[in-house]
Amino acid sequence: MGDVFVAGAGMTRIGRRAESLPSLMAEASHAALAVAGLETPEAIVVAAMNPEEFLGDGNFASNVATHMGFADVPTIRIETATSSGAAALYAGFAQVAARLRRNVLVVGGEKMTHLSTPRVSELIGRSIDPYERSYGATMPALAGLITRALLARHADGAREIAQVAVKNHANAVRNPYAHFPTAVTLDEVMASRMVADPLRLLHCCPISDGAAAVVLTAETTAVRVAGIGQGTDTLAVRHRRDLTSFRATQAAARAAFAMAGFGPARVDFAEIHDAFAPFELISLEDTGLVPPGKAGRATLDGETALDGRLPINPSGGLKARGHPLAATGLAQIVECVWQLTGRAEGRQLDGRIALAHSIGGLATNNWISILESRG
Amino acid sequence: MGDVFVAGAGMTRIGRRAESLPSLMAEASHAALAVAGLETPEAIVVAAMNPEEFLGDGNFASNVATHMGFADVPTIRIETATSSGAAALYAGFAQVAARLRRNVLVVGGEKMTHLSTPRVSELIGRSIDPYERSYGATMPALAGLITRALLARHADGAREIAQVAVKNHANAVRNPYAHFPTAVTLDEVMASRMVADPLRLLHCCPISDGAAAVVLTAETTAVRVAGIGQGTDTLAVRHRRDLTSFRATQAAARAAFAMAGFGPARVDFAEIHDAFAPFELISLEDTGLVPPGKAGRATLDGETALDGRLPINPSGGLKARGHPLAATGLAQIVECVWQLTGRAEGRQLDGRIALAHSIGGLATNNWISILESRG
Repeated sequence: MGDVFVAGAGMTRIGRRAESLPSLMAEASHAALAVAGLETPEAIVVAAMNPEEFLGDGNFASNVATHMGFADVPTIRIETATSSGAAALYAGFAQVAARLRRNVLVVGGEKMTHLSTPRVSELIGRSIDPYERSYGATMPALAGLITRALLARHADGAREIAQVAVKNHANAVRNPYAHFPTAVTLDEVMASRMVADPLRLLHCCPISDGAAAVVLTAETTAVRVAGIGQGTDTLAVRHRRDLTSFRATQAAARAAFAMAGFGPARVDFAEIHDAFAPFELISLEDTGLVPPGKAGRATLDGETALDGRLPINPSGGLKARGHPLAATGLAQIVECVWQLTGRAEGRQLDGRIALAHSIGGLATNNWISILESRG
Repeated sequence: MGDVFVAGAGMTRIGRRAESLPSLMAEASHAALAVAGLETPEAIVVAAMNPEEFLGDGNFASNVATHMGFADVPTIRIETATSSGAAALYAGFAQVAARLRRNVLVVGGEKMTHLSTPRVSELIGRSIDPYERSYGATMPALAGLITRALLARHADGAREIAQVAVKNHANAVRNPYAHFPTAVTLDEVMASRMVADPLRLLHCCPISDGAAAVVLTAETTAVRVAGIGQGTDTLAVRHRRDLTSFRATQAAARAAFAMAGFGPARVDFAEIHDAFAPFELISLEDTGLVPPGKAGRATLDGETALDGRLPINPSGGLKARGHPLAATGLAQIVECVWQLTGRAEGRQLDGRIALAHSIGGLATNNWISILESRG
């Protein structure tokens, strides 16, 4: 297996966007290609979760490639629910690692804000086990159930969870690409409208449009993909042994660190899948970045803040940067690359090792990617 | 890049099936794994074109893996419209070629017969350029337009095209997995109901359910994947220079033969994407298997029959074996593997080099795979 590097990264502003999804993907892609100094990629990997139902368009890889002006560049589409962007990174990584291609453009995106919230919720809910869905389970409902189990274990849990949202919104204020660059207070989070008891509105990520792209290459650059790991779990949440940790994240972390050849202690900062604020706490522990049971305390103590020991979600995370589904796994990578190459002005971190963590479905198909700066 | 071999192949009977799609995929997968002597694969690649709309279920890779009893095996979904099965083969191939995995189960399938034909046509039509779709273009309508252009060039074209269907139905009679194992005559084809002038019912593949699976491995077996090539074209048919040849097939063939290190003269038999009978003639020439302008004559002369010089679609092809969309690209590989390993009883061919050709959308995303028997 050959080494794989990142030659360029780009993304759109996340939010309510008027442009078509192929246009958003083209914007992100051409930004990444410009940084890479590459006119035409050898291949394209497209991540989109459900363009057929969000947009009414299929054959989406060919659609996007044609729209970008790359109708003659080989392209495939990858889908693993909400982690599709991370899965696409892996598919591109495999092509370059095998030296089937010298470079691959990986682009992910979604457009949802033109639909009603109930319709978006129904479409995202297709990721849930059909039997559980038949009893009315939605993503927020299942996340609420998990949050309840988490709260039962932590006396100060409600404040710990709310602080995740406070921190990530504070970070988003410094990110011009964020959907909600607005500060929120602990009281505002804890008093916001109930969505799925005990989950409140400000615990939940928004519905967002946007796209993100990365160019992978076999040529040495400043950022190497040190490891990618995938972990999976049963589609049905009721078949899990534990609700307050995700086996899929634990397996992904083991695989990613094994490939990288080092452990979580080397990680300087991370982008974590906080579609629901409590998931950041669960995932900090599942990745091994924080010892079991300590994530909430570390968050309240400011350890994961931008100026803390281990900054988490400098971009603002899914919570405040936004969560355009298949874009998200790649938007995390874009943030890590920008941080590692000194392009995150206003929120620039030190550090050489970055970790990105993406959750697919209700933690059925999770990914950990580790990037290493060679500067 | 390391060599990649086929350790096992399996498929379901194609046709109108009562089982769920995950059940059909499990049947095909466990058949392939049994031949491979493998209990649990290291990874799974799932091809399905549109399970969200055909079935109402998303997150489909996790759904299928869980259903098979492999909830803890990493899985991703691949989609390139009607060539999704072939694209999944490539995605699995890349993982094994890079030695990211020692083996990968690749499975594709679709279930459509529970829906009305107009609804199936609408869903398949999502593959068409949105502007052309807005004028009422369907897959048969565009194929009819291409067929008309082809007929304008060939005096005996109507009989040549009809003979493709006659030949492929004759082959399917010998295939217990075929959707329509029934012989048809030239007169029956040419008198069948008009679907999209000049295309008639018996020029068109049926709507089918089914699944097919292949196990790829880094360990040497009797069948090596000698080459895989991909070719693409504009989403819009109106942007093409030529209607009677597919640039995407020509590019895929160039790439596949370049990887294999030999040319089309070495190919002993082939599975060709005959969703519409004239596409077999177009594709025979685009792949280089038959000289330009000669495919119709060769077909009428019996050169592509089971006992001819270059047997084409020994399985019966999409026309008569059936076309369960994302299963098809892998069902072609299964047929090639069975032929190369002496398991195609009743229709067994000689030969060491097999070619499979898959069309995605209206020839926007095409694939050529070349298999080599080492026996």
